[in-house]
Parts: sequence; C-alpha cells; structure tokens
Amino acid sequence: MYKLVLIRHGESTWNLENRFTGWTDVELTPTGVEQARQAGRLLKEAGYEFDVAYTSVLKRAVWTLWHALDQMDRTWLPVVHSWRLNERHYGALQGLNKADTAKKYGDDQVLTWRRSYDTPPPALEATDPRGQRQDVRYARLDAEQIPLTECLKDTVARVLPFWNDTIAPAIQSGQRIVIAAHGNSIRALVKYLDGIGDDEIVGVNIPNGIPLVYELDANLKPIRSYYLGDAEAAAKAAAAVASQGKA
Amino acid sequence: MYKLVLIRHGESTWNLENRFTGWTDVELTPTGVEQARQAGRLLKEAGYEFDVAYTSVLKRAVWTLWHALDQMDRTWLPVVHSWRLNERHYGALQGLNKADTAKKYGDDQVLTWRRSYDTPPPALEATDPRGQRQDVRYARLDAEQIPLTECLKDTVARVLPFWNDTIAPAIQSGQRIVIAAHGNSIRALVKYLDGIGDDEIVGVNIPNGIPLVYELDANLKPIRSYYLGDAEAAAKAAAAVASQGKA
Repeated sequence: MYKLVLIRHGESTWNLENRFTGWTDVELTPTGVEQARQAGRLLKEAGYEFDVAYTSVLKRAVWTLWHALDQMDRTWLPVVHSWRLNERHYGALQGLNKADTAKKYGDDQVLTWRRSYDTPPPALEATDPRGQRQDVRYARLDAEQIPLTECLKDTVARVLPFWNDTIAPAIQSGQRIVIAAHGNSIRALVKYLDGIGDDEIVGVNIPNGIPLVYELDANLKPIRSYYLGDAEAAAKAAAAVASQGKA
Repeated sequence: MYKLVLIRHGESTWNLENRFTGWTDVELTPTGVEQARQAGRLLKEAGYEFDVAYTSVLKRAVWTLWHALDQMDRTWLPVVHSWRLNERHYGALQGLNKADTAKKYGDDQVLTWRRSYDTPPPALEATDPRGQRQDVRYARLDAEQIPLTECLKDTVARVLPFWNDTIAPAIQSGQRIVIAAHGNSIRALVKYLDGIGDDEIVGVNIPNGIPLVYELDANLKPIRSYYLGDAEAAAKAAAAVASQGKA
C-alpha cells in the first residue's frame, strides 16, 4: 500500500480579495503562511516522511510547500516543479472579483465558469498582458501549450501526463510523495483517482492548506482518503470554497 | 565566458550568538532573512538569470536561497541539494561560544581550529547527540562519509567531487548557476578556483548574504571576481567574519 499526500496552497492575496487567480502568480497572505505551517505540523505529528515533493511553478504553491517542509524539518527534500500542476487557467476572468463578476453575469454563469467540466471562461487575447506567453518560466513550452483559458477538462488533460509519466512511476518505485498544488489541479487528480464523473466533480471542493491523504493499492487505486487533523474544520473550509463565486 | 554566483547564507542564530555551528542545523535570524532578500534584489537589479540553483542540506543556506529566489521572482527554479556543500564540520566545538572557547584555549588555538588548513578541531564522539549519524538526511551515506570533525582540507576534499562531477559540467553545458552555501564550503571553492595556497586561504573571509560573482573562461579559470553591491560594505562584512574568534 502507498500513501500520497496532496496539499492545496494556503490562502493567497487574491483568495482574500475574492478574485479569479488562475495562472496569475500571487502571494500567500499571513493566514496562508500559517495554514502552510500548520499543514507541515500536522504531517510531522502524524509521522509522515517523504522522499520527493512536487509542486507547480506558482509561488503560492511553492511557498506553501516550503513552509510545510520547514515545519517538518525537511527543507533539504528534493522538490520538482511542473507547470502541469498549475491552477486551472481562468482566461479573461483572471484578476476580476468573483462577486462583481457574479453581479454582472449572474450566479449561474459564474458557477458554470467556475465548475462546469467542459465550458471554459472567455479566453484571454494572446497579447493580453495578463497572459503567460512572455513569461520566462514557460519559455521552453510551445506557445499552444500555454493556455489562454481552461475548463477543468483541459486541466485534467494537462495534469494527467505528469501523473502518468512522473508521479505514478515514482510512487510505484516506492518513493513517498507530497504534492503542493492548487484547487483545480488537485480536483483533476482527485477526479482521476476516485473515478468521479464529469457531472459529480462540481461538488468536490478542496480546502486551503489541509493535507489530503490517499491510501493507494499496488495499482494506485484508492483504498481510502481523508483530511489530516480536524475533519469538521476541513468540511467547513471546503464549503467556504464552494460559496466563493456568489454575488 | 561563464558567470557563477556564490552566496554565503545570511546571519544565523548561532552567528549572532557567536557559537561554532558546523553541521548543526540552525535558523536564519531576521537580519539573515533580510540579507538573503537583499542578495536576491541585487541579483535581480543586475539582471542575473539562472537555470539551476545548488545548495546544502542545512536550512540556513536553503532559506537564504529561497528568500533570494523569491525576490528575483524565481521561486520555480530547480534546486539541487547536496551535503557536499555543507559548512565545515566543527567537531566537538559545535555549540560552543567562540569567545568562551578563545578564553579557555587561547586566541591562537582557536585561530588554528578556525583557519588552519589541515588541523581539525577535536572530533565528536560517534555517539555524541550533536553528531549527524542518526540524521535521516544523511541516511544514504556511508558512516565514514559523515564527518566527526573537519579541517578546511577535509572540506575541500568533499566539496570538489560535487564541483567536478555536477557543477562544473553544468556550467560548461551553458547552465547559469547560483550556489547558496556556507563560509567554508565557499572558501573551499574559492581556494580551488583562484588557486590559493594552503597558507594564504586563512586570510580569505566570506561575508554573509552578499553575492560573489566569478567570471570564468571556457576552462572555468577565473577572469575576475567581485561582490555585487557596495564593495566597501562587503569588505567590512568580511573583516567582521575574520574577527569572530577572538576572546
């Protein structure tokens, strides 16, 4: 049996401001730093050890990992970054306030953009300064690999190659792995691991900074999964995520 | 021509308490954090870009790198950790106050332990709780690779294989490299690169948190080297390091 730990980044400045973030590279708030440290303390207290950590190329996930590793006294752990673990790209909504957007377009439209499996938000123009095509961290990608918007289906499509090519073989080779990532890149993994349907995934919300443990069999099928720490607090935090996009 | 950047970690709690640190894994002070951030700002302002960063497995170097990368907006950069970049092991002196030790053994003896090329401080007992033989981060090493004390000559001997096998080939393949490490692992590299004699290296002191740039030719021979930022401040900081071991 294998264990895999997933951590959504702690609260970011744009979580706090209730803005669509996507690939915008915003910082953790002081609360987010504390959530990340608490995640590390929970893992340490529960005796978790890791051989390698994976994270995105966005600083809110990276700093979440760093603070958690520090609390575990494991700042020396190898860390692998991949753009494939980035948050879902939010297209032309990036930077907009979620409640303002809901007032303008209606709760239903915003819920569709936030949670529909296959309807992406309006795309950024390729030349929009909010886009990533000039960003040095993506310089080795083909332009068409750098999204201008994504629905969750698109996110799943670019997360899974990294799972299949890199993370799954590492787990099966016996490496103990923690992934610090984002609400939707983690939802993509959860959907795949738990075999959740395209319509059911809308109801799955990932709270900030609470380690989500998967126990996996030899074929990496989940035996069970659970949040570390206070289960009620995790459920409340997930419900708060679900209610963010309302006017 | 290649450029290589070396950064000694920012001030640590035991630098501040004037204690011999060695492989003890102490934290940065708030001043040390600010020095690390300032190093990152200097590198950013001067337009430095890196492809990979190397550091030790000790948190004062790791956090120095992390804070510097954050100021450069490069938290996504690949980071490689090696115990071979650790500080010189200070043996049975680890944890002792430098001035107290000088009072007890005399300035000359302490200067010998601090700066002699080939006289190590008294060794730790293998079972001393201040030692690293039970530390999980060194679990893959042979016991005899984990020092009980080191003179600078010993440090040079374990730093150079990492330079020769990993860093030098990376530089010659065109990768732009920053190394965040320690006073004596950097002195080991400086001694090798500049061809400094065993007797002359005693006069070389590396200040905390100031980027040291080497311009290297195709064979990795130094063309010139300099500290970024205020040269006078760097010289003063190096002189302060030199005076630490006095009663």
